[in-house]
Amino acid sequence: MLTNDQLAHWDRESFFHPSTHLSQFARGEAPQRIITGGEGVFITDRDGNRLLDGFAGLYCVNAGYGRRQITDAIAKQAHELAYYHSYAGHGTEASITLSKMVMDRAPEGMARVYFGLGGSDANETNIKLVWYYNNIRGLPQKKKIISRWRGYHGSGLVSGSLTGLELFHKKFDLPLSQVVHTEAPFYYRRPDPAMTEADFTAWLLAKLEETIAREGADTIAAFIGEPVLGTGGIVPPPVGYWQGVQEILKRHDILLIVDEVITGFGRLGTMFGSQHYGLQPDLITIAKGLTSAYAPLSGSIVGTKMWDVLCQGTDENGVFGHGWTYSAHPIGAAAGVANLKLIDELGLVENAGKVGAYLRRAMTDAVGDHPNVGEIRGEGMLCAVELTSDRATRASFDPMGSVAPKVAGEMLKRGVIARAMPQADMLGFAPPLCLTTDEADQIARVTGEALRATLG
Amino acid sequence: MLTNDQLAHWDRESFFHPSTHLSQFARGEAPQRIITGGEGVFITDRDGNRLLDGFAGLYCVNAGYGRRQITDAIAKQAHELAYYHSYAGHGTEASITLSKMVMDRAPEGMARVYFGLGGSDANETNIKLVWYYNNIRGLPQKKKIISRWRGYHGSGLVSGSLTGLELFHKKFDLPLSQVVHTEAPFYYRRPDPAMTEADFTAWLLAKLEETIAREGADTIAAFIGEPVLGTGGIVPPPVGYWQGVQEILKRHDILLIVDEVITGFGRLGTMFGSQHYGLQPDLITIAKGLTSAYAPLSGSIVGTKMWDVLCQGTDENGVFGHGWTYSAHPIGAAAGVANLKLIDELGLVENAGKVGAYLRRAMTDAVGDHPNVGEIRGEGMLCAVELTSDRATRASFDPMGSVAPKVAGEMLKRGVIARAMPQADMLGFAPPLCLTTDEADQIARVTGEALRATLG
Repeated sequence: MLTNDQLAHWDRESFFHPSTHLSQFARGEAPQRIITGGEGVFITDRDGNRLLDGFAGLYCVNAGYGRRQITDAIAKQAHELAYYHSYAGHGTEASITLSKMVMDRAPEGMARVYFGLGGSDANETNIKLVWYYNNIRGLPQKKKIISRWRGYHGSGLVSGSLTGLELFHKKFDLPLSQVVHTEAPFYYRRPDPAMTEADFTAWLLAKLEETIAREGADTIAAFIGEPVLGTGGIVPPPVGYWQGVQEILKRHDILLIVDEVITGFGRLGTMFGSQHYGLQPDLITIAKGLTSAYAPLSGSIVGTKMWDVLCQGTDENGVFGHGWTYSAHPIGAAAGVANLKLIDELGLVENAGKVGAYLRRAMTDAVGDHPNVGEIRGEGMLCAVELTSDRATRASFDPMGSVAPKVAGEMLKRGVIARAMPQADMLGFAPPLCLTTDEADQIARVTGEALRATLG
Repeated sequence: MLTNDQLAHWDRESFFHPSTHLSQFARGEAPQRIITGGEGVFITDRDGNRLLDGFAGLYCVNAGYGRRQITDAIAKQAHELAYYHSYAGHGTEASITLSKMVMDRAPEGMARVYFGLGGSDANETNIKLVWYYNNIRGLPQKKKIISRWRGYHGSGLVSGSLTGLELFHKKFDLPLSQVVHTEAPFYYRRPDPAMTEADFTAWLLAKLEETIAREGADTIAAFIGEPVLGTGGIVPPPVGYWQGVQEILKRHDILLIVDEVITGFGRLGTMFGSQHYGLQPDLITIAKGLTSAYAPLSGSIVGTKMWDVLCQGTDENGVFGHGWTYSAHPIGAAAGVANLKLIDELGLVENAGKVGAYLRRAMTDAVGDHPNVGEIRGEGMLCAVELTSDRATRASFDPMGSVAPKVAGEMLKRGVIARAMPQADMLGFAPPLCLTTDEADQIARVTGEALRATLG
């Protein structure tokens, strides 16, 4: 580790960081943090800070940091064969084994897994598969994708269009015209405070029906959604939502793409969110938890109904013209195999359900009575603390987004990483699935201290 | 390694391979190959075959297989810190060091490097940057991208639209409307056999001017091209092409995106193709050679002119809303640092130029007189053998694409991997940059044997 200022200087003058204020960072006005190690739920930086990572990187280090079983598997694969491509029927023991392990864990009715690199490219693949599918079926007009406001499905041009958050659209000319957004299933922000949860679900379903009627069902290919809204606010769906949505989609011959980038491989206390909510997906997007982020790897799990048509398509048209150089990269595949084994061995899926529920109770005990806490919600190892300037009216702070970053900053000073979620004043928590109850208590306690330090 | 049929069976029933005939593979009619190791320019499969990889994976294992300096760096990084994100000013010693090393090697006038995962997502990033740039400049109509037929820029929805090959468009509804294609700079396939190379360049430039006039320069944001056409045919540009293109782009305020995914980090015998052809890019796409594919990593190198406007944009609009979870992944960054050091230590840039030229001479000696060889061409460590049914008329075989795969199959039997390029009858060679003259002789000799075995 370089300990003089050289590294800090190179960082400012060479490195274009994602999701950063570019000019402030270049001028040295925005913080810089150089991470050096991690173990369990803790990371360390080069200034000697040890931080409890309450967001698992970006909801992704599910197995926790410093897992020797995974890093040994990466090292072994690197030394044996770091790379060969997977085009035209090529594979490695790791990539084939992982494809089998994914299919063994997937919900019923799934046929194959395609491997990409990150969630955004997996959703690109999904849209390509959906369009190809309807072309082979002779339905060339049936191509639009319905997504939800506050959904998060990536940061590319099409995947960022699926995303329903202004931060990812503004000044980028997104969303593109192939994507249509419907209402977010966000009960706390329901249009009428008098609505019950069941009323709200009925309203959402009516809005979805309206959207389909307006666009024409014969123009709509698929609906994409996260089982629990992620970056849009960590919001579990209202009662009856997914059953209602699925009934509507089936009636209109609209495919269901379930984006399980956050929920896949245990975060909700079940292997997939689809199993948690009784979903029957045609496509499932996977990434993050697949490797616990130890190496980049994503995937599209394709249902039997679609797979059969894709096979028909290659019988009619030859080789399927889609591939990434790094599809099924051996290092990612080896990390995935070791990670999924470790998740089983450590019982992390069950732990996510149990300790996740404990975390929400601890959070409720710590800050539930605070006058600026509007709601504490979550599912499995996901928790959000929604802040409001007025509990009774659920009003936003002015300007919106001005308070949560300050609270997160106070938490950081006290050794805990929380995420100030975009387009809201909201603290998000998505710790590694190995979180203990003691560590959950620490997160809740520090949240309370930081909240009082910021808001009194 | 599982040596019974279990692995083979899992592969057929679970794994959706890229660029594969899906139904033939599922039915066991298309070949399957499980790769187990590699050293230098050779790979081995589980059936005990040792193959000279004349295509370096997919033009990407530039340093050669089994490089302990790179795999040790991956192992060390994995054990220290496999992952943390790079959002909001976070980094690691590896990612910051690599950003500095990339900028030290980049052509003049470049300001920062953004890291992604593969070439496709790097080109997605580029288009987002270009659109944002013209929005900040107050030119919201100036958004179309000109690409070339036979260009290859990825396999996503927008990156696949930039690509100008039917295999990647057909049945996928690509290209999308934001992309306009102009003529391929492919002299062998010039429209009039009487044209000199200079005539052909003048014709290409006139076509580009026509395209710009037809669309309106005020609607065109950027032009994207590979210094040497890659998957479209391994075609160096005709004389004066890039100078002429750059003059036109400057005159119309059109940005130049140079896709150096194949040519970056030494393949042409210079660090970048931009330096080889005197290009002054506004954006450079990098991937493959950045890590020699030992771990997924790509990048967008942003020129000063654009960077200044991006900074202005965040001053006006706040945080730049673009990021991948795995941007600047520590494992990829560590592989990149070790790989770039190794390229310098082994003198691979120089070797690519020297042995690449030797390979084309050896190929000309071996097959230049064959009646079905239309042209042998290349630049640096790139070589293509263009096949024709008639040297005099340069006619294609019927159907096109029916012969080269057979020749490549005969080569494989003789222990050498060549690539049968799409939309052509053409053998492509892009070996690791460490190729020796003896290995070049082996490639040329086997090409000759296979050509005669196939065509007499």
